[in-house]
Amino acid sequence: MSEYKNTDFMLHSDLAVTLYQEYAAKMPIIDYHCHLDPVEIAEDKNYDNITQIWLNGDHYKWRLLRQNGISENLITEKDSDYERFVAWAKTLEFAVGNPLYHWSHLELANYFGYEGELNGKTAKDVWDMCNETLKSGTLSTRKIITTSNVTCIGTTDDPIDHLLSHQKIEQDSTFSTKVIPTFRPDLAMQIEQSGFVEYVEKLSNASGIMIKTYQDLLEALCNRMDFFQQSGCVSSDHSFSNVPFTRATEAQVEQIFQKALQKSELTNKEQEEYRTELLLFFGREYAKRQWVMQLHFGVVRNTNSRMFQMIGKDTGYDRILGSVNLEPLAQFLDCLNSEKSLPKTILYSLNPNDNAAIDTLCGCFHETEIRGKVQHGAAWWFNDHQFGMESHMQGLAQSGLLAVSVGMLTDSRSVLSYARHDYFRRILCEFIAKKVNAREFPLEKERLGKMIEDISYYNTKAYFNLTV
Amino acid sequence: MSEYKNTDFMLHSDLAVTLYQEYAAKMPIIDYHCHLDPVEIAEDKNYDNITQIWLNGDHYKWRLLRQNGISENLITEKDSDYERFVAWAKTLEFAVGNPLYHWSHLELANYFGYEGELNGKTAKDVWDMCNETLKSGTLSTRKIITTSNVTCIGTTDDPIDHLLSHQKIEQDSTFSTKVIPTFRPDLAMQIEQSGFVEYVEKLSNASGIMIKTYQDLLEALCNRMDFFQQSGCVSSDHSFSNVPFTRATEAQVEQIFQKALQKSELTNKEQEEYRTELLLFFGREYAKRQWVMQLHFGVVRNTNSRMFQMIGKDTGYDRILGSVNLEPLAQFLDCLNSEKSLPKTILYSLNPNDNAAIDTLCGCFHETEIRGKVQHGAAWWFNDHQFGMESHMQGLAQSGLLAVSVGMLTDSRSVLSYARHDYFRRILCEFIAKKVNAREFPLEKERLGKMIEDISYYNTKAYFNLTV
Amino acid sequence: MSEYKNTDFMLHSDLAVTLYQEYAAKMPIIDYHCHLDPVEIAEDKNYDNITQIWLNGDHYKWRLLRQNGISENLITEKDSDYERFVAWAKTLEFAVGNPLYHWSHLELANYFGYEGELNGKTAKDVWDMCNETLKSGTLSTRKIITTSNVTCIGTTDDPIDHLLSHQKIEQDSTFSTKVIPTFRPDLAMQIEQSGFVEYVEKLSNASGIMIKTYQDLLEALCNRMDFFQQSGCVSSDHSFSNVPFTRATEAQVEQIFQKALQKSELTNKEQEEYRTELLLFFGREYAKRQWVMQLHFGVVRNTNSRMFQMIGKDTGYDRILGSVNLEPLAQFLDCLNSEKSLPKTILYSLNPNDNAAIDTLCGCFHETEIRGKVQHGAAWWFNDHQFGMESHMQGLAQSGLLAVSVGMLTDSRSVLSYARHDYFRRILCEFIAKKVNAREFPLEKERLGKMIEDISYYNTKAYFNLTV
Repeated sequence: MSEYKNTDFMLHSDLAVTLYQEYAAKMPIIDYHCHLDPVEIAEDKNYDNITQIWLNGDHYKWRLLRQNGISENLITEKDSDYERFVAWAKTLEFAVGNPLYHWSHLELANYFGYEGELNGKTAKDVWDMCNETLKSGTLSTRKIITTSNVTCIGTTDDPIDHLLSHQKIEQDSTFSTKVIPTFRPDLAMQIEQSGFVEYVEKLSNASGIMIKTYQDLLEALCNRMDFFQQSGCVSSDHSFSNVPFTRATEAQVEQIFQKALQKSELTNKEQEEYRTELLLFFGREYAKRQWVMQLHFGVVRNTNSRMFQMIGKDTGYDRILGSVNLEPLAQFLDCLNSEKSLPKTILYSLNPNDNAAIDTLCGCFHETEIRGKVQHGAAWWFNDHQFGMESHMQGLAQSGLLAVSVGMLTDSRSVLSYARHDYFRRILCEFIAKKVNAREFPLEKERLGKMIEDISYYNTKAYFNLTV
Repeated sequence: MSEYKNTDFMLHSDLAVTLYQEYAAKMPIIDYHCHLDPVEIAEDKNYDNITQIWLNGDHYKWRLLRQNGISENLITEKDSDYERFVAWAKTLEFAVGNPLYHWSHLELANYFGYEGELNGKTAKDVWDMCNETLKSGTLSTRKIITTSNVTCIGTTDDPIDHLLSHQKIEQDSTFSTKVIPTFRPDLAMQIEQSGFVEYVEKLSNASGIMIKTYQDLLEALCNRMDFFQQSGCVSSDHSFSNVPFTRATEAQVEQIFQKALQKSELTNKEQEEYRTELLLFFGREYAKRQWVMQLHFGVVRNTNSRMFQMIGKDTGYDRILGSVNLEPLAQFLDCLNSEKSLPKTILYSLNPNDNAAIDTLCGCFHETEIRGKVQHGAAWWFNDHQFGMESHMQGLAQSGLLAVSVGMLTDSRSVLSYARHDYFRRILCEFIAKKVNAREFPLEKERLGKMIEDISYYNTKAYFNLTV
Repeated sequence: MSEYKNTDFMLHSDLAVTLYQEYAAKMPIIDYHCHLDPVEIAEDKNYDNITQIWLNGDHYKWRLLRQNGISENLITEKDSDYERFVAWAKTLEFAVGNPLYHWSHLELANYFGYEGELNGKTAKDVWDMCNETLKSGTLSTRKIITTSNVTCIGTTDDPIDHLLSHQKIEQDSTFSTKVIPTFRPDLAMQIEQSGFVEYVEKLSNASGIMIKTYQDLLEALCNRMDFFQQSGCVSSDHSFSNVPFTRATEAQVEQIFQKALQKSELTNKEQEEYRTELLLFFGREYAKRQWVMQLHFGVVRNTNSRMFQMIGKDTGYDRILGSVNLEPLAQFLDCLNSEKSLPKTILYSLNPNDNAAIDTLCGCFHETEIRGKVQHGAAWWFNDHQFGMESHMQGLAQSGLLAVSVGMLTDSRSVLSYARHDYFRRILCEFIAKKVNAREFPLEKERLGKMIEDISYYNTKAYFNLTV
C-alpha cells in the first residue's frame, strides 16, 4: 500500500507528480469555510483514541456503516470505542471508489505515518498505533493544524456568539494560525422555527439592542456584524433548500415580523418575503463591509424524521434536493447587482446537476477589477469525491477560467480533514496534467505551477483580503 | 470479430479479464425483475426463426429501425420475417456505441456461437445459421434459461392473475429454475383509467371478495397478496411518472373510490390522494410480508398519440420524464419509515439526472441489521448501456457501498436478454479493475472476487430471502 | 505548439488521425444555422486588424475577460484595438480546458498559418502577423468562407427582412457558396414586448397585407414565408426559455391579439396561449413547405439587468435555464404529429441535463422513409466544447444512431468560427476511433469513413433537401 505515501496517489503521469510535488504540496492552506469548534482549537484538544477523532460526530462514516447493516449501537450508541473502530475498519474494506476510503488512508498516511490498509485484519494494529501517537501528544488539535500548514481557518458562527475562543486564540502568541469567525445568521432567517422568538431575545442580549421591530432586528444584526468584523470576520454563510426571492415592502416585512414575535403562524409566502428582504439586507451589508457572501443550497435535511426525533440533526439523514430552482437565486443576485450592492459571492449547490447552470450564472456577474467576483464553490459534501471534483473543475474550465477559482475548503467538523485539501490538490494536478499530456495546453511548467499555486492558495488569499 | 468471444469484450486489462473469468462469469443469475411470459416458460416455447425471438415485440429495436427511416412494414407490420431481419442487420451496421449493437452480438456469440458481425452482407448467413440452431431445439425458452445459468426468475404479474403457469412450472421436476411472480398492482392504482370499474370486478372475481367499498378493495388485494405469497412471490413492482404523496383520510378515499365506481370524473388531487393512500397501504403490507417494494418512475408512456391509437402501447413511443419530482417520493418513504412500516425498497428512475439525489435519498433510510435496505436499482431501459451502467456504479461507489448492491436485472421481454447480465458483469469487472489499476484500492484478488460474486448473485439472494 | 497543425490536435490514436485526414477534413461545410451578417458577405467585408474580427461582438470572449477582472474599457469600451488584443492574449494564457483556447489557436493555425501559442509574450508578433495577413486581402469575409470549403450558409433573418443581400450574393457569379435565409419570427411571437405593435406595422409593410386581425397576421406571415422560400429558405428557427403549450380557440387568440394591438397588458396565460397557437400555425406551415423547424430553448437572456441597460443585449450576460420543462415541448410535437403536420424538427436545449430526455423524446417521433426525422441538435453555445460535444455524441450513440445525425453548425457571429466545424470533426473522429480501439465496433475503415462523411456533410444535405 505504498499508494498512500505522499508520492503518486491519484497522480497518473510524471507531469502530475511533478506539479503536485513542486507546487501543490508545499502551499499553505486557507480553510475559509469549515465547522471546526473554536473551543477545541483554543483548548488545543487532545484525543484519547482514533474513534474519538474519527467516528464521533462524523455522519459521513455513519451513513456507510448503516448501509453495511451495522447495528446502531456500533455507530452512535453504546458500544466501546474499539468495537466501533473495528466495525468501521471492516466496512471500509469494501468501500471501493468511496472518498472515505481515500480520505481515511490519506489521513492515516499524512498524520500517523501509516501506509498500509485499514481493514478487519489490520484494525487492532492500526488502533494501537494511532492511539499511541495520539497519546504522545504530537497530534493535538493545534499540532494537526500546524502540521497541515494551515495559515487561516474560517469557522462557522452564529451572530449571537461572543467569539471568546477566537479572541483567546488571537491573543495566544504560541499559535500562529489565524482563526476567524464566519457570520452565519441562519437562525435569524428561519422565522418559521419554533425557537425564533427566543432567538430574537438572545440576539437582543448579545447586541445590547432591544429588538421590538424589524428595524431593531436589522440594527442588532449590524451591531453583530460590526463585532464579527472586529474579530477578523471576512465572510458570511447561509444555508437553504432554495434561495428565496419574493419581494415585499418594509411595512409588510414589519407586519410579518410582528406576527412571528406573537407566535402566529406564517404563510409560506410570508416566510419567503421575510427571508428575501432579510437576505437582501444582508447582501447589502456584506457589500459595504467587503465581505464574501457564501450561499449553500440544494440541501434537504433530516429526511428520516423518526431518526431525527431519536438522535437529532447532523446524524447522517440529509440528502440532495432533487430539483433546485435557480431562478430566484438569479433574481436575487441581479437585484443586489442593480443596486450596486452585490458582494463577492460564492455559490454552492448540493445538486451536481446544477453545475453548468451555475457556471453560466456566475459568468453574468463578473466585474471590472475583481478576478472571479462570483464563484462556483468547490464540490461539496456528497460531491466531495474524485468524480465530483473533476466534474466541478471541468465545468469551471470549460465555461471560464479555472485559474481564478478560490479552490478547496473542507466544510468539515474534523481537524484531520485537512487531508481533503491534499486530495483536492492531487486531483487538480492530475486534471491539469491530463490536458497538457493530451496536448491541449502547452507544457509551460512555471505557468502551470502558478495556476496550481493560485488555485491552492493565492486566489483565496486575495479574494478574502487576507494577509496571512 | 473475436471480440464477442467470452474472453475480453469490454475488459481492458488483465485484471478485468481475470475478475470476469474467475468470478463473474461462473455465477448463476437471479433475474428478479423481468417481463418474460410465464406461459412461454411453462410451454417451453420454441422459435421458428431469429426474427420471432429478436424483433417481435422488441420496441428497443423498433425505435432504431424507425430512426433509420425504415418503413413501418419492416418493423411492426406485414413484411416477411426474413426481410425484417435484413432491415435490422443493415441498421445495426451503423449503430456504433449503441447497446443494441453490443447485446445483439453478445447474444449471437453466447447462444448461437457466432462470433462474426451481423451486417447487411452477413445477414443471410446469420439468418440461416440462427434458424438452424433454433430448429434443432437446443434453444427453446427453457434451454436458453438453463444455458444462461438462471436459478430464479421474477416475472411481472397482475393481482388478478391465477398464476397457473407458475404452478405448472413449479410442479415440473424436469426444470429446476424457480419462476416466481411479482405483484404489480398498477391497474388497481390507475383509478383515472376508463377500464377501472371493470378491473375492480375482475379483482372481485379473482379474490372471491365482492368489492363495494375501499375497505373491500384492500381486503381483496390482501387476499391476492396472500395468494401470490403462496406462489413464491417475494417482491412487488409499481410504475409511475412521479411517485404520489398527497395525504387524505380514510373517509375521503372511500368517497373518491365511490365516485370512481360511479364513473364520475376525478380531479387530479383526488387521483393523487387515492394513489397515495393505496400505495401507503401496499407499503405496509409489503413490510408485513417482508417483500421487496420496487418503484419505477420517471417514465412518460405513449408520447406519440397517433401511433398509440394505431398500434397500442409498448411499441417504442415512451420516453424519459424531463424533470422528476423526488420530494413526494422522499415523503412517502419517510411516512412509512415513521410508522416502522418501510419494506426493503428499490428505487429506479428513468432519468439519469436523478442518480445523485437518489443515492443520497437511499442513504437516509438504511437500518440496523439489513445490508443496503433501500437500494438504487440498476441503470434501466434507456440507461441500460455501458455509460449508464458505469455512471450508476460510480454513483453507488462514491455515495456508499457498491459492494452491497443487488446488481443487475433484465427488465426484458426476451429470453435472450440474459446476455445483459453478462454485459453488466463485464462492465462491473472493468469498473472495479480500473480503480485497482489506478492504485485507488488494493489488489486483493479474493476480496475483489467476493465483491463481484456478491453483486452478481449473493446480495440478491440474501436481499430477496431466496433459497436458490 | 505543433499541436495546432492540421495533424493530430484532439486526435489520440492512429485511427483517429486516419479518419480525420482521409474522411473528415476534406468534407465541405454546410453551416445551416449561424448569425453571420449577409451584408458582410455581400460586401465581402475586409478587416483592418484581428481585434475587429475577434473581439468586436464576441461575447464569449468578453465573459472570459470580465472573469479575469479586466476593465470594461478593454472589453466593450474605449481602449485601442491593440490594447484589447493584448488583454485577450494575456487572459487566454490561463484558459486551460476552455474551448476559446482551442478555437483561438485553431483559427490562428487554419487561417493565419500561425502554429505557436498566443499569450502575453507573443501578442505583439501575432498582432503584426495577423494584421499583415488581413491587410493583404487574403482573408476577406468571402475568402475565409471559400478557404473553409463552405458550400452553404443559413443565416438568421426576421420575416420583415427584404433579403437584399441574399439576392445580391445569389446573383454574384464570382462567389459560389449558397447563402440562404432562415425564417426566425421571434418578434412576431413576443407579444408581450413593448415594440410589438410597431413590429406588426413593419410586417404589414413588408408583406403588403394590412394586419388588423390575427388572421391577417397569419396571412402576412405566410406571405413572408413564401418570399423566404423563393429566396432559398429551407428552415426556420425559434428561441425560447421554455417551449409553450397552452391551447386556446381561434376566437380567444383573436381577442388576445386585439388586446395587444391596443397595448393592453396581457396575462402570462394569454401570452402562452398566443405563442402556442402561433407556434402550431408555424409548425403546420413549415410541414407544408418541407422546411426544417429548429427550436432553441433553455436560455435566460440579459440576466444582469444593470449591464443590459448600459450596453444592451448579446453582450455576455446570458445563461442556462436551471430547470427546463420539456413536457409542453412533448405535447407540442405530439399535437402537430397527430395532425400529420409535424415538420422535420431539430431540438436544442442549452441545459445539458436535458440530453437524455431529449434523445428519448426525439425517438418518439421518427417516421417511415425519413432518416432521423426529429433530431437532437449539436451541443451549443455554453456546451460547444470538447466535453459537451462528446457527451452529446455519446447520448446520440447510446440512445439511437449517431450515424444519422445532421452534425455541426456554428451558431456564430464570426466568419472565423468555421474552425469550430474542424473542432467538431476532430472530436467526432476521436469519439468513433475510441469505440473501435476498445473493440466495441469493427475496424471497417470504409464504413467508419462513410459515417464520418455522412455526419459531417451528407446527412445535412439530405435533411435540408439541399443541392449544394
